[in-house]
Amino acid sequence: MPITTPRTLSGFMELLPPEQMKFEKIKSIIEGSFRKFGFTPLDTPVIESSEVLLAKAGGETEKQIYRFTRGDTDLSLRFDLTVPLAKYVAAHAGELTFPFRRYQIGKVYRGERAQKGRFREFYQCDIDIVGDGELSVINEAEIPAVIYSTFSELGLAGFVIRMNNRKILSGLFEALGISGKSADVMRVIDKLDKIGADAVQKLLTEEEGLSADTARELIAIIQSNDTTALDSIAAKSETLAEGLSELNAVLTNLRAFGVPEENFRVDLTIARGLDYYTGTVYETTVTAHPEIGSVCSGGRYDNLAEYYTKRRLPGVGISIGLTRLFYTLNEYGMLSEELSTAPSFVTVIPMTEDFSHAIAAATEIRALGVPAAIDFEAKKVKAKLSAASKLGVPYVIFIGEDEIAQNGVTVRDMANGSQFTAGLAVVSRGLSDKYEEQLRQKPIK
Amino acid sequence: MPITTPRTLSGFMELLPPEQMKFEKIKSIIEGSFRKFGFTPLDTPVIESSEVLLAKAGGETEKQIYRFTRGDTDLSLRFDLTVPLAKYVAAHAGELTFPFRRYQIGKVYRGERAQKGRFREFYQCDIDIVGDGELSVINEAEIPAVIYSTFSELGLAGFVIRMNNRKILSGLFEALGISGKSADVMRVIDKLDKIGADAVQKLLTEEEGLSADTARELIAIIQSNDTTALDSIAAKSETLAEGLSELNAVLTNLRAFGVPEENFRVDLTIARGLDYYTGTVYETTVTAHPEIGSVCSGGRYDNLAEYYTKRRLPGVGISIGLTRLFYTLNEYGMLSEELSTAPSFVTVIPMTEDFSHAIAAATEIRALGVPAAIDFEAKKVKAKLSAASKLGVPYVIFIGEDEIAQNGVTVRDMANGSQFTAGLAVVSRGLSDKYEEQLRQKPIK
Repeated sequence: MPITTPRTLSGFMELLPPEQMKFEKIKSIIEGSFRKFGFTPLDTPVIESSEVLLAKAGGETEKQIYRFTRGDTDLSLRFDLTVPLAKYVAAHAGELTFPFRRYQIGKVYRGERAQKGRFREFYQCDIDIVGDGELSVINEAEIPAVIYSTFSELGLAGFVIRMNNRKILSGLFEALGISGKSADVMRVIDKLDKIGADAVQKLLTEEEGLSADTARELIAIIQSNDTTALDSIAAKSETLAEGLSELNAVLTNLRAFGVPEENFRVDLTIARGLDYYTGTVYETTVTAHPEIGSVCSGGRYDNLAEYYTKRRLPGVGISIGLTRLFYTLNEYGMLSEELSTAPSFVTVIPMTEDFSHAIAAATEIRALGVPAAIDFEAKKVKAKLSAASKLGVPYVIFIGEDEIAQNGVTVRDMANGSQFTAGLAVVSRGLSDKYEEQLRQKPIK
Repeated sequence: MPITTPRTLSGFMELLPPEQMKFEKIKSIIEGSFRKFGFTPLDTPVIESSEVLLAKAGGETEKQIYRFTRGDTDLSLRFDLTVPLAKYVAAHAGELTFPFRRYQIGKVYRGERAQKGRFREFYQCDIDIVGDGELSVINEAEIPAVIYSTFSELGLAGFVIRMNNRKILSGLFEALGISGKSADVMRVIDKLDKIGADAVQKLLTEEEGLSADTARELIAIIQSNDTTALDSIAAKSETLAEGLSELNAVLTNLRAFGVPEENFRVDLTIARGLDYYTGTVYETTVTAHPEIGSVCSGGRYDNLAEYYTKRRLPGVGISIGLTRLFYTLNEYGMLSEELSTAPSFVTVIPMTEDFSHAIAAATEIRALGVPAAIDFEAKKVKAKLSAASKLGVPYVIFIGEDEIAQNGVTVRDMANGSQFTAGLAVVSRGLSDKYEEQLRQKPIK
């Protein structure tokens, strides 16, 4: 038979079992956290009609889309979870209860140039709160509060949710009389982090035609991150005043949500997709590695589904780029080594030909919710112990003639080799307690 | 702005929130059950190189595949989870511990003709145990035991795992001297359920050229489902003897696993993909609706990855067709109406302008793992109660001036409208207990 080399496409993450276990742990904590905040799960198709999916897309995104024809149907793979949400809410608005709080965790596809840390298939973990006609600004504080709670549960302490409000930037341009140039000015401002204030000053005056004073004032205000400095000019722009008021409401409520000061920060340089976001915008950086960019971004929008419906659906959402986040955490050694990655918490090794005692023991342990495997193979005990050890299984149970005679089991702690014999009920309860402890392990150190 | 009608492709399941909650509940019970038996999660890409994915495929399957070109790469969407498993194990055999016990729950794609209850995108929930060179027959009992345990946890009582052993059929053909025609005979035998014994007898004699006696004997043996009748002719075929011995080992161990007699049954008519399975084969029928066919099928194979490696990798696996199962349960009214489908277990309704007490209350409730939402919208309490009721939220908490003054909260049981005021700690604990109860609800009735 001819052999085809088994390979996985480049840009597609495929993990070995221990890494997959860590990935699943992170995914499940994220999902659990979203659930706790009352978001309802959604699961839209990976394939959509191109006409529907690309109603809005254009530019870079469209080039990256996996698009193909089947029969005479033009199909595309989803490239994010926001467009499918817009489609869904527009199609089912009459059947939903608003505000509609949904989460979706799923794979999306972008045919980017393959490079280290960039994936063509990757998980996004999205939450959105969508209103029908209107939506309170408080939701713009709740969204980062969910992210704070989620990252904390993961064990990630060093992160900052950086926030701005699009109305502040638009209003500031208004106040400075440069509204007409806002898109271009924004593009230049966006480079502040990379090229510095002097270079930006030069670009703004020489290329965008701003006066030296205006450029200097703009840079100073934005770099100051001091919203009180903006209060004095808020009278010049209603939009600016509104942006400042919203930002203050968000900050106040973020504190009420218990988000510590070190985990959020106003950053007036953050703009994000000018044409979509209309209020608060978020980017999240990992303190130890700002160079990896934002691992969680989003914002407020006034009209989720304008391409699908005339109904006005304002909302706010955020997305964790899970595949990239996981890759980064792994690369930088930020995943906990203590996190158990074994498929079972205990492996039962039968020492007699009759497996019924081993099966009964595993069944009782599983009934307590503890993952238990039985090694049925015709191998020596030493080989079985070695397999369990290789998998990182924390405990092994032996059941031989002696144990059966004593109506007990022998349990071995694989960490130190200590073992003892006791009744199954006692051992099961002990394992269950230890397993509960393990479940509380945080995946990020 | 031009409006594109928001629609979802036919053959793609997209659920409303209450149904999605039920679907997720079922999926999560299946996953939890697989985990308890010590299977490790795997997550392979949806897109694979066509050369790799189709190394083995052919016939009907190949026609149904979503295949397309991007750049100069020939790509296909996975049509099952077995081929990706074979690829994975072949590629990583040196890094895995055998027996390799993995589960994978994911979407697969088949461009079938769209019809009621048939989906082009559907979830498969697979477990496989793969050995390196050899694998004990006991695993062929464990696999249906996992399914029994899983379906029981779902609340599905009326189901039968029907089993056969391919060696029994092959051996029987040998014993009857019709080995040369086994593929054709098998195809005819497979119709027994549909066209009956007389029609099968006719086909076997007139089209396959069997003698009337041989045809009659074959049909009688298969229909009897009586393996003891086979013992007498087992001497004529080593394969038959081996098949009988394996089947007996599986049955004995199934009982040791605690699977009740009513949930499994030998069915000598079951064949399944002759070219792949080599030992025990399974099909699972829902007793109340046998017409929907098998909802969970699989079997033993001797060579998982022969297209990718010379390493012999025998295994046994089974797959739950979750999307179809869910669709069927829903259609036949077999899903529990009592199962809560609300996104939150409690909704906090702040009655003051200051939301901090509401936020603090929700935070404390969430800390106990209970999903809590806060209704921040600028609406009347009546409208908020009505929204919570529409979502099926079991409890609502009010926090107004009185509650704040008393340092308590008012909790309302939405089922009967009763309400009382108490300290938050007491209320949280009570809600947590009730929520634990809800978590134990079974999705199938």
